[in-house]
Amino acid sequence: MKVIIVGGVAGGASCAARLRRLDEKAEILMVERGPYVSYANCGLPYHVGNVIQDEANLLVATEQMFRAVFGVEVRTNCEAIAIAPDKKTVDLRNAATGEVTTESYDKLVLSPGAAPIRPPLPGIDLPGIFSVRTVPDARHMREWLHRDVAGRTGMDSYTGFQTVTKPMRAVVVGGGFIGLEMVENLAHLGLDVTLVEKMNQVMPPLDPEMARLVERYLVKHDVRVELNDGVAGFRQCPDGTLEVVTGSGKSHPAEIVILAIGVRPETALAKAAGLAIGQRGGIRVDEHMRTSDPDILAVGDAVEVKDFVTGQWTLIPLAGPANRQGRIAADVIAGRDSRYRGTQGTSICKIFEGEIGQTGASEKSLLAAGVTDFEKVYIYQNSHAGYYPGARMLAIKVLFRKSDGRLLGAQVLGEDGVPKRIDSFAMAIQAGLTMRDLEEAELCYAPPFGSAKDPVNFAGMVAGNLLSGDMPIVHWDATDGGFLLDVRNPPELKVESVPGAVNIPLPQLRSRLGELPRDREILVICRSAVRAYYATRILLQNGFAAKNISGGMLSRSMLGLAAVAPPAQAV
Amino acid sequence: MKVIIVGGVAGGASCAARLRRLDEKAEILMVERGPYVSYANCGLPYHVGNVIQDEANLLVATEQMFRAVFGVEVRTNCEAIAIAPDKKTVDLRNAATGEVTTESYDKLVLSPGAAPIRPPLPGIDLPGIFSVRTVPDARHMREWLHRDVAGRTGMDSYTGFQTVTKPMRAVVVGGGFIGLEMVENLAHLGLDVTLVEKMNQVMPPLDPEMARLVERYLVKHDVRVELNDGVAGFRQCPDGTLEVVTGSGKSHPAEIVILAIGVRPETALAKAAGLAIGQRGGIRVDEHMRTSDPDILAVGDAVEVKDFVTGQWTLIPLAGPANRQGRIAADVIAGRDSRYRGTQGTSICKIFEGEIGQTGASEKSLLAAGVTDFEKVYIYQNSHAGYYPGARMLAIKVLFRKSDGRLLGAQVLGEDGVPKRIDSFAMAIQAGLTMRDLEEAELCYAPPFGSAKDPVNFAGMVAGNLLSGDMPIVHWDATDGGFLLDVRNPPELKVESVPGAVNIPLPQLRSRLGELPRDREILVICRSAVRAYYATRILLQNGFAAKNISGGMLSRSMLGLAAVAPPAQAV
Repeated sequence: MKVIIVGGVAGGASCAARLRRLDEKAEILMVERGPYVSYANCGLPYHVGNVIQDEANLLVATEQMFRAVFGVEVRTNCEAIAIAPDKKTVDLRNAATGEVTTESYDKLVLSPGAAPIRPPLPGIDLPGIFSVRTVPDARHMREWLHRDVAGRTGMDSYTGFQTVTKPMRAVVVGGGFIGLEMVENLAHLGLDVTLVEKMNQVMPPLDPEMARLVERYLVKHDVRVELNDGVAGFRQCPDGTLEVVTGSGKSHPAEIVILAIGVRPETALAKAAGLAIGQRGGIRVDEHMRTSDPDILAVGDAVEVKDFVTGQWTLIPLAGPANRQGRIAADVIAGRDSRYRGTQGTSICKIFEGEIGQTGASEKSLLAAGVTDFEKVYIYQNSHAGYYPGARMLAIKVLFRKSDGRLLGAQVLGEDGVPKRIDSFAMAIQAGLTMRDLEEAELCYAPPFGSAKDPVNFAGMVAGNLLSGDMPIVHWDATDGGFLLDVRNPPELKVESVPGAVNIPLPQLRSRLGELPRDREILVICRSAVRAYYATRILLQNGFAAKNISGGMLSRSMLGLAAVAPPAQAV
Repeated sequence: MKVIIVGGVAGGASCAARLRRLDEKAEILMVERGPYVSYANCGLPYHVGNVIQDEANLLVATEQMFRAVFGVEVRTNCEAIAIAPDKKTVDLRNAATGEVTTESYDKLVLSPGAAPIRPPLPGIDLPGIFSVRTVPDARHMREWLHRDVAGRTGMDSYTGFQTVTKPMRAVVVGGGFIGLEMVENLAHLGLDVTLVEKMNQVMPPLDPEMARLVERYLVKHDVRVELNDGVAGFRQCPDGTLEVVTGSGKSHPAEIVILAIGVRPETALAKAAGLAIGQRGGIRVDEHMRTSDPDILAVGDAVEVKDFVTGQWTLIPLAGPANRQGRIAADVIAGRDSRYRGTQGTSICKIFEGEIGQTGASEKSLLAAGVTDFEKVYIYQNSHAGYYPGARMLAIKVLFRKSDGRLLGAQVLGEDGVPKRIDSFAMAIQAGLTMRDLEEAELCYAPPFGSAKDPVNFAGMVAGNLLSGDMPIVHWDATDGGFLLDVRNPPELKVESVPGAVNIPLPQLRSRLGELPRDREILVICRSAVRAYYATRILLQNGFAAKNISGGMLSRSMLGLAAVAPPAQAV
């Protein structure tokens, strides 16, 4: 059996290595357009930022290793330019010589990845404008940052030695994962960074109100954030400085520009071969990673996957799924019944000290999929026991089914302990657990790492109270017409308060019930909705109609309804 | 309805607060023997270590708050001394006045906790010997550490200012959670610490070979570790110094001694009332937390719980379960059908930079429960992408059912990222997931936080390979008679090698198969069992009988079969 694998990074390399382990006799040829196989593309922003100093560290496994250990023939700088599915051949072009050879296959695996989007804007090919995809991309950015730009800087980005007063300026276009990681790394090098984003939020997988916290966090770290303003073009000034011109007519000067607008599945080869392409523009595969031609499989960022929660076809370019798909493709070629279960979109992004995580569905992805049987709660809890030093507030949004309590998705922001919670939620989604199960989850606790009631338990308890009818809730956007009762203590109201809300501190509530209306819905406010929950219970049991405003003042601030920033420690 | 709750810390306080939320009309009386309710007993070692400087930070909720917010009558310094189940009354003694009053109840909740074991050894009541249970305990230790001990020290433990050359010496008796946390905190204060443990290992929930790593880690941090040597008694020298005398006749001088031998459920009250006590010595309750008297419930460290994995009755004194049991007791009293699902024993302990976590069954707990349908694998993987700075090796032991692949337990040691993995395993155990599910788990990944193939995935893959028959494994204790093949590179063998093993580096294996015997089982060795897996696949497919030695040289070192220490970064 002869297997050709097109693309030698995450999905392709995993497939080749796994296939060899399953089949010692197969002839395996892996071709890669670029100069390296199995490199750490997730590390590229950190190499630009010099956090990873040595380029060699990005090379996870070499061509030589694939040959020697896995008996896989590897051709780098070799591009697959055409597939003839009827003849089961692929045309390969040697990038150095231009020579084209034709190779036959029994099974073909496509793992071409996704290419950074480069819209045909005026000036987009000017020197100093970079995308972040390959090791050479990172190398070129490092060289560019290292050089003396138009006499302005003598800054040595990689030693930190700086000889001029004005730092270099960077514009990052696009506020997704790569964009934010580039913002952090350029800021880390001492550059003055502007983030330009066409959409109304950064981090598209997050819901907008959660993204607000990220945007404020960026601003707090001296990043200029320009939302709702796409790039119209690029100009080069006589002194060599670039200018990024936006749709609104603004101009952002910069010595370096990073394009991180997003990626597009590399489907040209598949399309030309007549393989089915999905509505989202990725290669369509079945659960065995087979394309519409059963002898051609496809994996990684180029394929559409089923959203694990909504069941909808989607594009989720992540390294973990790509690796697993590569392994499954190898299993299937070796005759095994492995199936890909769909992608949850579990991800995390570091931005300065902040950790931005999510898994499963967002509110927008549910609505886009036509799902209405869901509720959301906002939770603000410490990352670990508040009495142990270093606790940071976590801002958590959890989505779950109203009808059966099943967890659908979670978004967690904070400066400590986010991975612990995201993975708990991710595992719960995979297992189909309910919020009641989260309430009972037994997670690890010691004061430096968590709380006896972990924020994940807390999310389960809040949702459980809601589902059992113990705690009706309302969100800030639906509070019109309600009687607003603020149960915080007077000093807290001085910091920030809601116009029109009546204040009765919680400890006085039982003795002042007579002051409250029995003919109106009472909407209860506190800082994080814990005391408001207690108050709601008192009111309901005393015959009042009461609801807790989810997430309290912290959610209000997050939603941009208040001018006051969230507590300093929250992202 | 009148409810009396005996014990006002984790379980009792949770029960009182929850019950009030469910029933605004109930009369709730909570009595606590000590001076404080709802204090953070998990924080006590850190208060002694001055990591938590202010005692007030340990008081999570005050007596006043329980009264004002929850309408709960609280009596501190008030001990329940007798229950009359037939009359449904409790006798309460005021510790200050000695006055005894009798209170009637409709429902009684016992949450008396567990008391530190203080064996009747000679000298155990000498000044300077402390247990760690209450806020006053911590206060007395702080005072003791602060004073000038026998003129030897002018060290101010809490300012770090030290005026003498000889540090104070501490002996910690018992190497469980509290013992290790006290070791860390006393070392943090600059004390010279000796840990004396009667058993053959520290951290009883761990299997002994995993505990070996912890013991070495302690030694690396200048803690003297004395195993297999129980305390025989205590002496006071004329200069005021204490001496801890052990069973083997050794004597360890100290200015302070911490007793952390373990805890024993407080069952005197329950026993005297004729309530059923389990074989393990805890109060016996059903899944609704009801004792043998349906009007008396019990929660927390005083009760026996069902081991979630083995189904056996056991004692697992942990704060998270205590809190959940308290809530469930409140639910049940309020007429709800809440049930406790059993305890997994999920826990974590910080020791210097090390993180020691476990969840579910250990090998010893399985064997003790008579379970033989299980297999174990050892995994050594980086805490996050190796190319991103700060990655530390995790040492992981995973236990799973052989017949169906179900995850039974995990132990994880490392200096980074342990909580993320423990919680993933914990959630998987709760959900009844298999190792194959772990293989497909979608956990959060970015270079600072994980790897595209997370160590949890890796555990799933290793177990999957074993369960599918792709990779037979053997453990070091069963390698006698096998042909040992070491596939590492020659420079690695210079550091450490196994006598009698034949070395063929992996890249040469395919061309040197002729050197291997076809009539013997070939047991393959590498550093962490990854290359040995590749080699095993090559050998099996070429008709050899081959097995991978689980965990490779790293497991061998862990098991104490080699003199060489594990890599510096592993705990």
